[in-house]
Amino acid sequence: MKAIAIVSGGMDSITLAYRLKADGYDLHMITFNYGQRHLKEIESAQYFAEVLGAQHDVIDISNIQPLLKGSALTDASVEVPHGHYAEDTMKQTVVPNRNAIMISMAWGVAVAEEADVVALAVHSGDHHIYPDCRPAFIDSMNAALRIGMEGHRTDGLHIYAPYLNVDKGAIAADGKKLGVPYEKTWTCYEGGEIHCGQCGACVERQEAFFLAGVDDKTPYRVPQVFGEGA
Amino acid sequence: MKAIAIVSGGMDSITLAYRLKADGYDLHMITFNYGQRHLKEIESAQYFAEVLGAQHDVIDISNIQPLLKGSALTDASVEVPHGHYAEDTMKQTVVPNRNAIMISMAWGVAVAEEADVVALAVHSGDHHIYPDCRPAFIDSMNAALRIGMEGHRTDGLHIYAPYLNVDKGAIAADGKKLGVPYEKTWTCYEGGEIHCGQCGACVERQEAFFLAGVDDKTPYRVPQVFGEGA
Repeated sequence: MKAIAIVSGGMDSITLAYRLKADGYDLHMITFNYGQRHLKEIESAQYFAEVLGAQHDVIDISNIQPLLKGSALTDASVEVPHGHYAEDTMKQTVVPNRNAIMISMAWGVAVAEEADVVALAVHSGDHHIYPDCRPAFIDSMNAALRIGMEGHRTDGLHIYAPYLNVDKGAIAADGKKLGVPYEKTWTCYEGGEIHCGQCGACVERQEAFFLAGVDDKTPYRVPQVFGEGA
Repeated sequence: MKAIAIVSGGMDSITLAYRLKADGYDLHMITFNYGQRHLKEIESAQYFAEVLGAQHDVIDISNIQPLLKGSALTDASVEVPHGHYAEDTMKQTVVPNRNAIMISMAWGVAVAEEADVVALAVHSGDHHIYPDCRPAFIDSMNAALRIGMEGHRTDGLHIYAPYLNVDKGAIAADGKKLGVPYEKTWTCYEGGEIHCGQCGACVERQEAFFLAGVDDKTPYRVPQVFGEGA
């Protein structure tokens, strides 16, 4: 069994990589450089590819960045919003059609390598803001791509999104079981020397570790406190 | 009305660009450099963008090329097959999932620019060999991408493929009406100084011009003869 996994280097996709490896997949990790303002996530992905003994390729699509205007993740003129993802300001972190772009490329690689699945770590916590993380999108994209290879591949190549209907806490719980060293993953949108602790991604990360009972060794500039201490 | 058009620089996509312009679209042409073995098509697209007064961007995704092994269009170790597209050897010219990749990127641009359509020049002559040129694929891809932007764009952005159900002869006939100077377009897979006249793309091109009664001023190294002279 072979998996082409879309791995940003964040906690979700690294947990996915560990899960695929544990489930016996021959693992090929693909990281997209789409013009993120920092490369910490990519370095994290590289680190874990070595740890897991997986093939790893970084696909540079950053020259589409000027054409995908308006997202805080790629446009240096837009301020990164602080706070929880569920807030409306987090809509600014939407890169138009990012998942379709990444899935389409990974699918092409999967066809070429006769892989069995294209795997990605979308989860239910993103459903509210990101329509391209919802089951309806993943299902219809899977159907379209299967139609697009009719007559060339007649086997079961499909999109595999094991966390599609669970939240980030459940991902952290799975990673805890798998022994993922989360302090080596990178989540922060701001790309400083250590995690800022305050951006939407950092807040969600710490919340997920709290919910899953993960002993989080990550240093944060301004850590969030959940539960009784909050 | 604004169109994001996927334009390779070949006769089909240049005819599409003229059609969109004639139909009143504000035109943004996007050409993908996916590691083709020659750049003649891209130069053709640049030329016509100037002629039509259209914005034009070349998106370089060539570093995915080593990952899409096995296609004669991108892999220098595979010989370009001669003969008619309908032959089985032409399957070698399939770049895995090319249309999904290009459509997904163009769709992202369309969302960012609030365009009305993502246009491409797929036609019925490609249905036999290329599943990602068939109506079933275009329709399902359109559905998936519309689901992927739910809540962000609620208008009618859709894939526009005006030649989806007609053949290359009909495209040439439309181009004749529109006054496309076809000798400035580039079709040949081999990328020499002039069209080779013999590769699958050159044969189909000349056949289309013959069927549409286009006075073809393109120089060919070995021209094909159709009709009474054949």
